[in-house]
Amino acid sequence: MVTVIDPWSGDLPESYDKLVKDFGLELYKNQFPDENRLMRRGVVFAGRDLKVIAKCIEEKKPYYVLSGIMPTSDKIHFGTKMVIENIKYFQDHGAAETYVLVADLEAASTRGVTIEEAQDRALKFHIPAYIALGLDPKKTTFYFQSQNIKVTQLAYEFAKKITLNEFKAIYGSADPGRIMAAVAQAGDMLFPQLKKAMPGIIPVGPDQDPHLRLARDIAKRFKSKYNFAPLASIYHKFTPSLDGSLKMSKSNPESVIEIPEDLDSLAKKIKRAKSGGRETVEIHRKKGGVPEEDVSFELLKQHLIEDDNELRKIYDKYKSGEMLSSELKNLTIEKMNRFMIDFEKKLKKAQKDVENINFLKF
Amino acid sequence: MVTVIDPWSGDLPESYDKLVKDFGLELYKNQFPDENRLMRRGVVFAGRDLKVIAKCIEEKKPYYVLSGIMPTSDKIHFGTKMVIENIKYFQDHGAAETYVLVADLEAASTRGVTIEEAQDRALKFHIPAYIALGLDPKKTTFYFQSQNIKVTQLAYEFAKKITLNEFKAIYGSADPGRIMAAVAQAGDMLFPQLKKAMPGIIPVGPDQDPHLRLARDIAKRFKSKYNFAPLASIYHKFTPSLDGSLKMSKSNPESVIEIPEDLDSLAKKIKRAKSGGRETVEIHRKKGGVPEEDVSFELLKQHLIEDDNELRKIYDKYKSGEMLSSELKNLTIEKMNRFMIDFEKKLKKAQKDVENINFLKF
Repeated sequence: MVTVIDPWSGDLPESYDKLVKDFGLELYKNQFPDENRLMRRGVVFAGRDLKVIAKCIEEKKPYYVLSGIMPTSDKIHFGTKMVIENIKYFQDHGAAETYVLVADLEAASTRGVTIEEAQDRALKFHIPAYIALGLDPKKTTFYFQSQNIKVTQLAYEFAKKITLNEFKAIYGSADPGRIMAAVAQAGDMLFPQLKKAMPGIIPVGPDQDPHLRLARDIAKRFKSKYNFAPLASIYHKFTPSLDGSLKMSKSNPESVIEIPEDLDSLAKKIKRAKSGGRETVEIHRKKGGVPEEDVSFELLKQHLIEDDNELRKIYDKYKSGEMLSSELKNLTIEKMNRFMIDFEKKLKKAQKDVENINFLKF
Repeated sequence: MVTVIDPWSGDLPESYDKLVKDFGLELYKNQFPDENRLMRRGVVFAGRDLKVIAKCIEEKKPYYVLSGIMPTSDKIHFGTKMVIENIKYFQDHGAAETYVLVADLEAASTRGVTIEEAQDRALKFHIPAYIALGLDPKKTTFYFQSQNIKVTQLAYEFAKKITLNEFKAIYGSADPGRIMAAVAQAGDMLFPQLKKAMPGIIPVGPDQDPHLRLARDIAKRFKSKYNFAPLASIYHKFTPSLDGSLKMSKSNPESVIEIPEDLDSLAKKIKRAKSGGRETVEIHRKKGGVPEEDVSFELLKQHLIEDDNELRKIYDKYKSGEMLSSELKNLTIEKMNRFMIDFEKKLKKAQKDVENINFLKF
């Protein structure tokens, strides 16, 4: 059976290995210099045309990094935090341009969120949140998809060269709203190259790979007209659901920590989260915990501890049984609290500065 | 079997009667005051919600008329001339607003014409031609579909509420380019109502009725958000091909007179055109001609003779055998020459005035 991931469903691949094999992804093998936490720790695991971007970084050649905001609610999840950290990595490592677009057309055509709601939410929360999480507003260009006439023009041009069957082969299904969203995304990803053809990289969850395949196919078909350079992508593993399943799912709010989340609810959720601890303290002391199956440890590893030595010590202590599950959870709660408090502070600051953001003018 | 017309194929309905019946069109029954030539002579034969517009005219209530330019070549055909004459009728009879949009997004997504080509052609030829054929530039607002952000926003909103199956039921087929073109058209047709809800009328060939059905369905689904007033349409019969078949087809240039067309080629084509004359002069004098089957007579009736008495006299003379087919053809050539010369003169003038055209600014 052909593996198809529907990027709108929240469905998950059976495993990362299968995904890499079925779609012919390139494994991430630490080929970027001065890696960020996600790259160092194998959370970033694959991509497409990673070598092209590694070469740009090495040879100081121009490339761009681009990602989109889907403003369906007033929260973001930890997957988005990883996207932002990867954007920031490229922004700090030679990307000539950083684009973050608000996918208001996609929100309208696939989620039924009106353009006005989408824009309003993005301005009040998402854009400030992206800055609070590390993007340099001076180096980042934001735009609303619906105001970028060039993106719309590309989308309509691209649509002429895609058949319904190709669309179904990539996405598993096709409906008018999704078709339009997908070609608009391809327009976004390639739009920076209208000014100057150069490679681009899209940091995103692997469930979004269908969009990359479509955009890369389109780039080839329009190469003679636009001379498009390769479009690369880089994929991170998901932040697990609190019950230990592969990905935090918004459909069950109790299984998810969002950003922001209030501290009481946070503590409750982490206390209930899947643990790699043993049945009793006695057994735990003897056999040691299983950090690999512990959601709290995964949160520390993916998001809350920057220092590799600090993380290694916790791993060892937990694995050896010296550290109990309750101690690991308390540590996670403490670090998560600090993260949320810091986020809220930076968010407020960014919300005040929102008028100084670089918006593309059309 | 369900009748489906594909508005992009140039295929034709089996007959106008069947079309009216199958799609539940409203017959045009001379309900508009001070009719134009096409209305008086039954060339305008049907529509949707015609009574709504008749009432607006009678009660001097606001409504709008809207049509689109598809700039695929540097010629227009006689069907477009009829559209323009009907727009002009409404412009002269109380329409509060007249919109003529350049369907550059549709040209890109269904014809593979680039946005730049489409815009360039529209500015240099189509828009001046629409003015040369009678539109009042002071009363007409032009825009490029791709620059009208509101139209794109509506298109994406609308797409969320259409399924692929509905699209197939209306159009007989679905491909990404056509889907996007169709929702953009719905956006165009309803865009004038964002400012103020009022009825609108779309003059067009009956092969475009699928677009009207889609837009009218959408208008109902979004009534609660936008309070859309009814969207009416008015349909004219086709100008026949020179071989007598139902519609001038661009795929066989010898069977078509386009606007502009040089006078030599014009004369040759009309001489070769299907005639309602008899085998010999003798039989013709005795039995009389058949104006109903004569392409030259149809051209006179639809396009070249304004005065009903003048047309009636020609009809009688030809029917009685007093006028020969060659005489009818010579008269048609003479009138057609005059039309083309007049068009070229007015076109040149309009081309010079193109900077004074009302373009919607975005």
